[in-house]
Amino acid sequence: MTTTVYNFSAGPAMLPSSVLQHVQAELLNYQSCGISIMEMSHRDPRFLKIMAHMESSIRTLLNVPDDYSVLFFTAPARAQFSMLPMNLLGDKKAVDYFNTGLWSSVAIAEAKRYANVNIVSDSTSNQFTDIAEPSIWNLNPDAAYCHYTDNESVHGLEFNRVPETGNVPLISDMTSNLFTREFELSRFGMVYAGAQKNIGPAGLTVAIIRDDLLNRASSLTPRSFNYGIMKTEKSIDYTPATFTYYVTSLVLQWLIDQGGVASISQRNTAKSTLLYEFIDNSDFYVNPVTAAYRSRMNVPFMLKEPDLENIFLEQAENAGLLGLKGHRVLGGMRASIYNAMPIEGVTTLIEFMADFAKSRS
Amino acid sequence: MTTTVYNFSAGPAMLPSSVLQHVQAELLNYQSCGISIMEMSHRDPRFLKIMAHMESSIRTLLNVPDDYSVLFFTAPARAQFSMLPMNLLGDKKAVDYFNTGLWSSVAIAEAKRYANVNIVSDSTSNQFTDIAEPSIWNLNPDAAYCHYTDNESVHGLEFNRVPETGNVPLISDMTSNLFTREFELSRFGMVYAGAQKNIGPAGLTVAIIRDDLLNRASSLTPRSFNYGIMKTEKSIDYTPATFTYYVTSLVLQWLIDQGGVASISQRNTAKSTLLYEFIDNSDFYVNPVTAAYRSRMNVPFMLKEPDLENIFLEQAENAGLLGLKGHRVLGGMRASIYNAMPIEGVTTLIEFMADFAKSRS
Repeated sequence: MTTTVYNFSAGPAMLPSSVLQHVQAELLNYQSCGISIMEMSHRDPRFLKIMAHMESSIRTLLNVPDDYSVLFFTAPARAQFSMLPMNLLGDKKAVDYFNTGLWSSVAIAEAKRYANVNIVSDSTSNQFTDIAEPSIWNLNPDAAYCHYTDNESVHGLEFNRVPETGNVPLISDMTSNLFTREFELSRFGMVYAGAQKNIGPAGLTVAIIRDDLLNRASSLTPRSFNYGIMKTEKSIDYTPATFTYYVTSLVLQWLIDQGGVASISQRNTAKSTLLYEFIDNSDFYVNPVTAAYRSRMNVPFMLKEPDLENIFLEQAENAGLLGLKGHRVLGGMRASIYNAMPIEGVTTLIEFMADFAKSRS
Repeated sequence: MTTTVYNFSAGPAMLPSSVLQHVQAELLNYQSCGISIMEMSHRDPRFLKIMAHMESSIRTLLNVPDDYSVLFFTAPARAQFSMLPMNLLGDKKAVDYFNTGLWSSVAIAEAKRYANVNIVSDSTSNQFTDIAEPSIWNLNPDAAYCHYTDNESVHGLEFNRVPETGNVPLISDMTSNLFTREFELSRFGMVYAGAQKNIGPAGLTVAIIRDDLLNRASSLTPRSFNYGIMKTEKSIDYTPATFTYYVTSLVLQWLIDQGGVASISQRNTAKSTLLYEFIDNSDFYVNPVTAAYRSRMNVPFMLKEPDLENIFLEQAENAGLLGLKGHRVLGGMRASIYNAMPIEGVTTLIEFMADFAKSRS
């Protein structure tokens, strides 16, 4: 008997099985052209068609306004932590950052190399389990931009609305939740995301940027990361990670076929609601995040008896529930339930958690 | 009847067919773990084993001395054009660059953002068909480093020995010829290469650096590209392009199984010698590069009747000889014959070229 496997890894993460099957089927011979897509020139019209499909899919899925450009970088999202201030500081001196978890902290540390960083709101004091109300935010109206991490994948904290920053361009790291719910792109100067959660394999960053922000780069900005040049060069100033882009193109098409972002958003909410309700009704598991800011993507949870964690993880793995170990800075468990995770994965996890709790009580 | 296809693309380029078959076979279920390697966390011990295998393979293949580190970047090699001066300038002001083709020119343009660039030797005047003798090189003994492009993939120009730069650390872009011939690594401060020619899929850069150069980075160096930090973090400071690294690990193992660099080097020389001899003995095709500096990897050639180029390319494609169109800056044709190209590909190309010439004479 084969156990159905569900992969709760935080990223690289589960991909739609239909996409993987498609990739496997044509891996040796892309569209009968005689070679693998991995072996094809990035200037080949067939590869350029893949890039055009990526862009048009993103424009469809997010309803991207005409005065925004879609850029692709062969690099981790983390590289943007440096590239944002290099590209966007312009003649300003200061930038605004929210600090709501591990990833915003890392982004802040990097921005400090290039600019004066003003912290708008700091969730350190509540161990990243809550986000302060706007009334006490410390916004600098003269900041070059204001950055926040829309979903903190380690701490399981997610914004439930778009922060209002007036005339200061709003930038969001949406690495772990882009394409998982609808939002109004015109509220943003730029959003960006590494691919390895909801978009495709690791090694690609997608950025969507308002065109008036394209040409503010410092002369020290590396050409490969200059937003204006990447726009002019249609994101192929260098040899891009062609295979990664190809798989991403298939994942985006899969998402369109699922009914798009509105449809997947409903399913994501249903999935996370089920899991949080189970945790809250349990006296065995706990999630510490304020209900209003709980992530729909990453659900960290602790056992009330931490000694049982290793047994929990081992038994989960044996039951085909993989990747549940929490991030090393937080410990405990974490279930990442991105777009590609079917609701059956979540119900199977809940059944397992219930059985485990019962067996230990 | 199926035509055997040979892919002469300059990169992304032909991969060993045994590697592609291996990838396809386990694409949905890596080593029976239930998920694809694309879906696996970069902190999973199985992925860490792949990274360790990459490093140990490189150390074996290139006989890497103990005081050198092997680093992996999820980024194009072109990003290093900025990162070299940011990481290596230290308290110096100037850097030395050879200009022997398109890629050195691009590297020079980028280095100028960060340092005073002294040109050691400039092949512009001979249209990048020759390299000046060492006696007239203009080396600056106070340069932070001296950079050259070991093989110019567009112009088909390759160094036939390691330049002597005294105490100035020598840096080489070996994107199109690393692992294709033996060389003494201890002559270098650092060598680096994008993967998409001889190493694996696009989206990975390998760097091998002498440890005394690891900690000279400017404070403006992005963390994701700081050589010292990448060493400390074992090249996983961020989520690397896991699938790309996995395929690369298989290509490196394939190379070891082929007998390593000494063995592949002999085959590479045999392949390119056959092709150049055919071109030189033909009155229909021409290669303009000085014999001593002809590339073993990329063989550009022109038809003496340029009007026939499109017909040549079309008929070649129909015969299963793909990717022969020259780079857009040079035009004409180019046969890239990297490690994965079997000698049968070259002999088939020569037969086709002979037949085509005959049919037109």
